[in-house]
Amino acid sequence: MSRTSPATSATGPVRFGSQARAVLRPSVAPTVTAGFWHERRRINARVGIPQGPRLLESAGNLHNLRLAAGSVEGVFVGDYPFQDTDVYKWLEAASWQLAQDAVAAGDTTSLAAEVDRIIALVAAAQQEDGYLNTWFQSGKGEGRYSDLRWGHELYCAGHLIQAAVAHHRATGGEGLLDVARRFADHIDAMFGPEGSGKPLDTFDAHPEVETALAELYRETGDERYLDLAAYFVDRHGHGAHGGEIYCQDRVPLRDAETVEGHAVRQLYLLAGAADLATETGEEAIAQASARLWHAMAATKTHLTGGVGAHHDKEDFGDPFELPNERAYCETCAAIASIQFSWRMALLTGQARYSDLIERTLFNGFLAGMSLDGESWLYVNPLQVRDGYQDAGGDQSSRRTRWFRCACCPPNVMRLLASLEHYLASTDGRGLQIHQYATGRFQGEAAASAIDVSVNTDYPWNGRIAVTVERTPDDAPWTLSLRLPQWCAEYALAHADGTPVSEVVVDDGWLRVERVWAPGDRIVLDLSLAPRLVVADPRVDAVRGCVAIEGGPLVYCVEQADHPGGLDDVVIDTTVPLTAKERPDLLGGVTTVVAAGYRRTPPQVAWWPYQGHAAPDAGALGAALELTAVPYYAWANRTTGGMRVWLPTD
Amino acid sequence: MSRTSPATSATGPVRFGSQARAVLRPSVAPTVTAGFWHERRRINARVGIPQGPRLLESAGNLHNLRLAAGSVEGVFVGDYPFQDTDVYKWLEAASWQLAQDAVAAGDTTSLAAEVDRIIALVAAAQQEDGYLNTWFQSGKGEGRYSDLRWGHELYCAGHLIQAAVAHHRATGGEGLLDVARRFADHIDAMFGPEGSGKPLDTFDAHPEVETALAELYRETGDERYLDLAAYFVDRHGHGAHGGEIYCQDRVPLRDAETVEGHAVRQLYLLAGAADLATETGEEAIAQASARLWHAMAATKTHLTGGVGAHHDKEDFGDPFELPNERAYCETCAAIASIQFSWRMALLTGQARYSDLIERTLFNGFLAGMSLDGESWLYVNPLQVRDGYQDAGGDQSSRRTRWFRCACCPPNVMRLLASLEHYLASTDGRGLQIHQYATGRFQGEAAASAIDVSVNTDYPWNGRIAVTVERTPDDAPWTLSLRLPQWCAEYALAHADGTPVSEVVVDDGWLRVERVWAPGDRIVLDLSLAPRLVVADPRVDAVRGCVAIEGGPLVYCVEQADHPGGLDDVVIDTTVPLTAKERPDLLGGVTTVVAAGYRRTPPQVAWWPYQGHAAPDAGALGAALELTAVPYYAWANRTTGGMRVWLPTD
Repeated sequence: MSRTSPATSATGPVRFGSQARAVLRPSVAPTVTAGFWHERRRINARVGIPQGPRLLESAGNLHNLRLAAGSVEGVFVGDYPFQDTDVYKWLEAASWQLAQDAVAAGDTTSLAAEVDRIIALVAAAQQEDGYLNTWFQSGKGEGRYSDLRWGHELYCAGHLIQAAVAHHRATGGEGLLDVARRFADHIDAMFGPEGSGKPLDTFDAHPEVETALAELYRETGDERYLDLAAYFVDRHGHGAHGGEIYCQDRVPLRDAETVEGHAVRQLYLLAGAADLATETGEEAIAQASARLWHAMAATKTHLTGGVGAHHDKEDFGDPFELPNERAYCETCAAIASIQFSWRMALLTGQARYSDLIERTLFNGFLAGMSLDGESWLYVNPLQVRDGYQDAGGDQSSRRTRWFRCACCPPNVMRLLASLEHYLASTDGRGLQIHQYATGRFQGEAAASAIDVSVNTDYPWNGRIAVTVERTPDDAPWTLSLRLPQWCAEYALAHADGTPVSEVVVDDGWLRVERVWAPGDRIVLDLSLAPRLVVADPRVDAVRGCVAIEGGPLVYCVEQADHPGGLDDVVIDTTVPLTAKERPDLLGGVTTVVAAGYRRTPPQVAWWPYQGHAAPDAGALGAALELTAVPYYAWANRTTGGMRVWLPTD
Repeated sequence: MSRTSPATSATGPVRFGSQARAVLRPSVAPTVTAGFWHERRRINARVGIPQGPRLLESAGNLHNLRLAAGSVEGVFVGDYPFQDTDVYKWLEAASWQLAQDAVAAGDTTSLAAEVDRIIALVAAAQQEDGYLNTWFQSGKGEGRYSDLRWGHELYCAGHLIQAAVAHHRATGGEGLLDVARRFADHIDAMFGPEGSGKPLDTFDAHPEVETALAELYRETGDERYLDLAAYFVDRHGHGAHGGEIYCQDRVPLRDAETVEGHAVRQLYLLAGAADLATETGEEAIAQASARLWHAMAATKTHLTGGVGAHHDKEDFGDPFELPNERAYCETCAAIASIQFSWRMALLTGQARYSDLIERTLFNGFLAGMSLDGESWLYVNPLQVRDGYQDAGGDQSSRRTRWFRCACCPPNVMRLLASLEHYLASTDGRGLQIHQYATGRFQGEAAASAIDVSVNTDYPWNGRIAVTVERTPDDAPWTLSLRLPQWCAEYALAHADGTPVSEVVVDDGWLRVERVWAPGDRIVLDLSLAPRLVVADPRVDAVRGCVAIEGGPLVYCVEQADHPGGLDDVVIDTTVPLTAKERPDLLGGVTTVVAAGYRRTPPQVAWWPYQGHAAPDAGALGAALELTAVPYYAWANRTTGGMRVWLPTD
């Protein structure tokens, strides 16, 4: 593949170094100004992020920082050695939000003050030599770096670094970046290969520091951080943690054939690998990253984009082992998947990576935050049986104000606050729109700035209007619009309705190359007609079932709309689906109406298995209208049953 | 229901007290002398039990006893506070084996010496006041009874008591019983309801002591132990452990509607509840026990009889949540299910309880021990994908010589060594044969002893010959033979082939009441023809699949017989199944041959979900002969794939 060496000045989570070899680079200073994601981000800005300091105070995270600083007496509060990351992820979210607010000319005073206050707590907690971890400094954990299998010290460092980079990019502030650099320098002095003279030749079993160090290199230009990231990535798989899958230590990443182990750990590691491939141009690690991404997408991803099949060890299952009710699909894993996919999208320019991002954003990720922004899901199953939660079922799939292990909520906050970063890119010869949202996106062509505005009511309406706002006078450039993987029907037309004749369909991209003039507008119409989908027959969990999708949205049925419950519902696939706008429902959604039946269960005395010849399979009851709602909006009304996959007989 | 008050003198794990109100009581001094179970028990006696002391020594269990006794220096070896139970369960197994060997006039010297040696270690470890737990005595755990959520002290006491009762019943030895009584007396002094003056009003989150105390009451006649058992059973569900399901504390057992939480904990508790119902005659607890058993059997039991759907927390899933590859189905849970079911069978006289025992014995339980008796399964899934274990998959479903948490192997040993106890019963008016094995079974009728011999090659042959060996001269009595729930075709005839005309079919029992003479023989022929079964449509995990059974055996296909793997195999249900004797295979089994196909998977680029209208579902390839082997024999050759449920298209 050919790679450009783009200059970089993006303000989002990924900003390439000057030597980066990637096909695309993020759009500069993108904005989202209206529509679906704007509303979600507004909730995040008004409800989610502002509640952070109070929740971090009440959960003890800020206390732990003061304790480490010696400014209060007491003991560590909480159960986990990675609680500092809640603070860091919130700081990252708030930093991106400050950038948003600055662009929107909003009032940043009070949020900026909160950020500064908490940065001061972090800085005060740091030790002389740069080390910073409240679990170990408070004596809750014993011995720095003595338990890298579970201690999470470098994982915490990684989130500190990402927060510091965000704060620096968003505000220019140096304070948190200084803290992060001092910790990174300390780590660099402590960890290295045998023969390097550094005392520790091992890695943190929870990856995160790798991608963070790569970004710190990008922010500072200091290649030591990139080298350290490379050392950590390649240190995996050589037995430093007993070869444990849980620690991403069974096999070197370059030799791996599929994703495995703890989903978040695997995907943060892969984000770091993609960063390395981008910055070093090394083919072997680029190929390994692409190989693992494809193995994940093709065999280990739920319909919602959620990943991580198992509650036990929070890990990936076998290929095609994609259970419904026990789908773990941690919200953090969806976020990690998006981060990894975006790096691969930029590295390769392939649309499929952004296809998976879209699916994950609208479904497996977004379900993690309630509509009102006040409560959260840690686990995102595809089925909840009738009466499950009321019978004392596992509460991790019930919306909660905060968690004892609160990794997910601030992770959602930081992704939403930086979401504009994941929507568009440039390759120096034009602009690529990866995700559809109303806003402005900049790129470069013929060494000049180009700028387009997008207007759309996506995902409720498939019409996307793209207007050229700025363009070089007579140099042609290419506008690329992603044609979603799910889309079977579309039209691309000029503002006057005439079809765009010069469109080239290129592996998921609709590409229009021409000389543009300011005010030129093209309109993409994607058919959002609801559709039924089936799974590969190797997905045992959904044999004999279909699911409903509409545009990028996966739908589900909820007990709230079907008071009789869902355990016995059967869909009639011969009746066409109907989309129905419901502004009254769930903040305004398009529902999908389907036909079905409620089965009368078989009458068995005490054993639920019968002879195949003439079993009592129950009887199909009266016809039933099924109302499907977007999966992202589930569990916002009651705690009843839910299903994504519906039996067909 | 009417209840007799039988006198009791059985030597198995359950021996009723003089006041017991149960419909049946265990057969006195039953024996198994040949056939399928005799061979499994021979392996247990020759390989399983003898290796115990060496394994307990190398795993540190005996060291921990010496450490607690102060006879060695060092630290506790092992990771779990319940490691003493491995010793106790082995002592129980060895005790029952001593009884077997005595009956068979075998050489008991060396095993008896080992038992005495280990009993001496246990006795030496006991503290002055009767307390005994090496985890806490060695300082590994801090503070007696301070962590009953995880400390397992009464769980350990329960297994000690069961071992002591077994040793006393089997050998008459008082030594271990004295140890157990002293510990039980200590517990009785420590635990009791508010107002009793006892310091602790709570319970051990891992039940076991309840059923053990009931048995200690039966063995000693001391009603304090029964009262203490009743206190503990009823202490559950009132929040002593925060209402946690994992601790069996969400709801009082008498109010519960279904089994829930950790499967072994739930079922040991229910065994204790059934004991209480038997000894006290209290209807409420009898009804709760029956209600929970039916909920378990009808909605939470895998085809193999295995229970416990989840790896995470080792717990029951929702009703009809019965996954295949992630079925936990711990071997210990199968054993606990058998123990609970047997108590219910005796209490109620209903055949269904023994139906489930048969299914569990031949499948979910027996798979837990390798054919050679040298390795074990902790987890008993119903599906393993191709290449799963070689790709570093969870090893708990791979046969292992011993486990870090070795609860299952000695549990298998004790059940096999006392298996004859679960086969037959008497109600004072005749004899009931619950399970079919060659041996002798005694009962009582008209206040006289009755005695029958059974000859059968079950489960390979459905012919079961029952010969009356001893009978009162002219008093009629009823011989009851269980008609298995799976059996669609059978014949009952006299020795000369004429049908038994007076048979009454009574809810799973074939009852023949007559005046018998010594030498009278009747022959039951059960059709073992292999059959296909389907699940209730609410069992989502196996929609569109069938399973193969033959007699009491559940079958599976293994990769060892299908080198191309099983992930893409489809069964053709239109071709009849064929049974095939294979004396050469797996120690001699009947296999079932079926017709099928190997599907060519769909060709999808990177996403495994497609539109419903015309999906590429792959193509059925050439016909394939499928060879199914008994599930109990799986994983004795290679580590490849395995499936119980097979897709039909």
